[in-house]
Amino acid sequence: LDLSTYSDLTSSARNRTEQTLSELVPKAPLSLYDPVRFILSAGGKRVRATLTYLTSQLASAEEDYTFAASAVELLHTFTLIHDDIMDNATTRRGNPTVHIKYSSNEAILSGDVMIALALEALSRGNYKNYRQMGEEFWKGFRFVCEGQALDKEFETRSDITEADYIHMIDLKTAKVTELAGVLGALISNIDFVEPVRSFAHHTGIAFQILDDLLDLTAEHPSFGKTIGGDILEGKRTYLFVKAFEQYAMLPPVNQALLDRIVTRTASVDDIPKARQLFEQMGVLQQAKERSEHETMLAKAALSLLPESEAKEMLSFFSDQLLGRVS
Amino acid sequence: LDLSTYSDLTSSARNRTEQTLSELVPKAPLSLYDPVRFILSAGGKRVRATLTYLTSQLASAEEDYTFAASAVELLHTFTLIHDDIMDNATTRRGNPTVHIKYSSNEAILSGDVMIALALEALSRGNYKNYRQMGEEFWKGFRFVCEGQALDKEFETRSDITEADYIHMIDLKTAKVTELAGVLGALISNIDFVEPVRSFAHHTGIAFQILDDLLDLTAEHPSFGKTIGGDILEGKRTYLFVKAFEQYAMLPPVNQALLDRIVTRTASVDDIPKARQLFEQMGVLQQAKERSEHETMLAKAALSLLPESEAKEMLSFFSDQLLGRVS
Repeated sequence: LDLSTYSDLTSSARNRTEQTLSELVPKAPLSLYDPVRFILSAGGKRVRATLTYLTSQLASAEEDYTFAASAVELLHTFTLIHDDIMDNATTRRGNPTVHIKYSSNEAILSGDVMIALALEALSRGNYKNYRQMGEEFWKGFRFVCEGQALDKEFETRSDITEADYIHMIDLKTAKVTELAGVLGALISNIDFVEPVRSFAHHTGIAFQILDDLLDLTAEHPSFGKTIGGDILEGKRTYLFVKAFEQYAMLPPVNQALLDRIVTRTASVDDIPKARQLFEQMGVLQQAKERSEHETMLAKAALSLLPESEAKEMLSFFSDQLLGRVS
Repeated sequence: LDLSTYSDLTSSARNRTEQTLSELVPKAPLSLYDPVRFILSAGGKRVRATLTYLTSQLASAEEDYTFAASAVELLHTFTLIHDDIMDNATTRRGNPTVHIKYSSNEAILSGDVMIALALEALSRGNYKNYRQMGEEFWKGFRFVCEGQALDKEFETRSDITEADYIHMIDLKTAKVTELAGVLGALISNIDFVEPVRSFAHHTGIAFQILDDLLDLTAEHPSFGKTIGGDILEGKRTYLFVKAFEQYAMLPPVNQALLDRIVTRTASVDDIPKARQLFEQMGVLQQAKERSEHETMLAKAALSLLPESEAKEMLSFFSDQLLGRVS
């Protein structure tokens, strides 16, 4: 199996999922479903759908993975709509956010109904392991709400430890990644659930830490992102939390910089300063190491699965997501 | 079976459901679950939980109805939180609404997580007919979102027909009532599902029309409600829709009154005027007749069920909900 075959197969799986997704969205009422069509058609990498596809192929399965993949993408997209309202975000991927293009009312309700559509997808998939899927779904959904609540709580706190941070991103980011993997495993072979969960969990954590690192250090930021956005928004990222651990030992000028980040008063000029400080403190290196450690744990979980083409593809998936191949 | 036994049994069922509900809400994060505890402890008649209880008793069933009843109450309460944001409502049952007591952000997210808790309840009930319950749940959930979207769309329209109105309240009110009944039927005997659905549907429609009527004519308005609130808010109620059908035939002074309702510029002085006009036009009588017709259809559906104490109790339920006994 080579990377080009991987790209062809996953691209075809994404197209099939897009088709199912678009069929799941009813026509009317327009005020409810136009915003849903808008955000779904704005694209996205559909990373979670790809993961569901790959884990569903770990054993030969008769069932249609596109419904499970759609359920996860709908859950994920629901979180984007509601989080953007809560974060007062005005743009996403170069488009206006749903509450800006339509209204907050429409964004709330359209987000809500995407959960109903996700449940409809799971139901229409007519899966043999529907009961377990339902259980995994409510857990993923509950945890992602808890993660968002913690993230918002953290905004006004400056005592966040690395463990607090990992707990928050586990809930907010990794659990939906786990759901994506586990639903696919429940389609292929229920015995694969726990290794897949572990693979997805560590991949999700590694991805989020890398995302935090790239926010400050990327040479070519992802479309619609600005270097240092997390600094300006005062986000409690992995970098910030690790830097803040050493706060007491820093000279006043550097403490003042961290204070400005905490209080969301940092300016654009502070972005290169923060980068330089984090570099000096070894925080960038720590983020890289932690992300690599999580990647290693993900690969270790993968090794518990029997050999198959899909297993090789999961390795490509992780490499691609974590920027090791492009 | 007498009314006092009915009251004792349903009161005990409500208490058991309250217990399950409170056990379903996790402790932390506080910013997420305090608002959930707040609105659940504010009470409510738990009409839907009572219906689930009663239909679960139509045949002797081993399964615990309180999880299904909790799922429906959580879905219903979620709609209250999000609708109150969309309607800019500041009080509910004499308490501040969730977005006023906390914040819009917390109200959005706490509403969201109540759906996850509802799904958790269905999952924890370990029901034999879980698959059908899941299907009924996503439908009820999707329809209630569609009903709310239509209700908001109607606010800026003056061409709403009686059929449009019935379609909207079917989605916004009756479908969750149906869900409450059907989940209980799926616990007792799957053969009872369609008669129960029909009973709950017509009861829900009858209740909503009666609620519209009482908003203008109640002598003792329900706690926290003001006579004529729908007139001030320009709601497209059954009364308004029926009155507007005759708009072209009305004298200018009465057309002006309806215009003020449409444009939400009606004053408190307009409330007795609207009542008098609707009385003269026969609209109050039409509402009473339509509600009674729906009640009759509900009773007809009930007659399809085999005799049982629970069936008698469903008749009490409908009488009590529709104010025929107190």
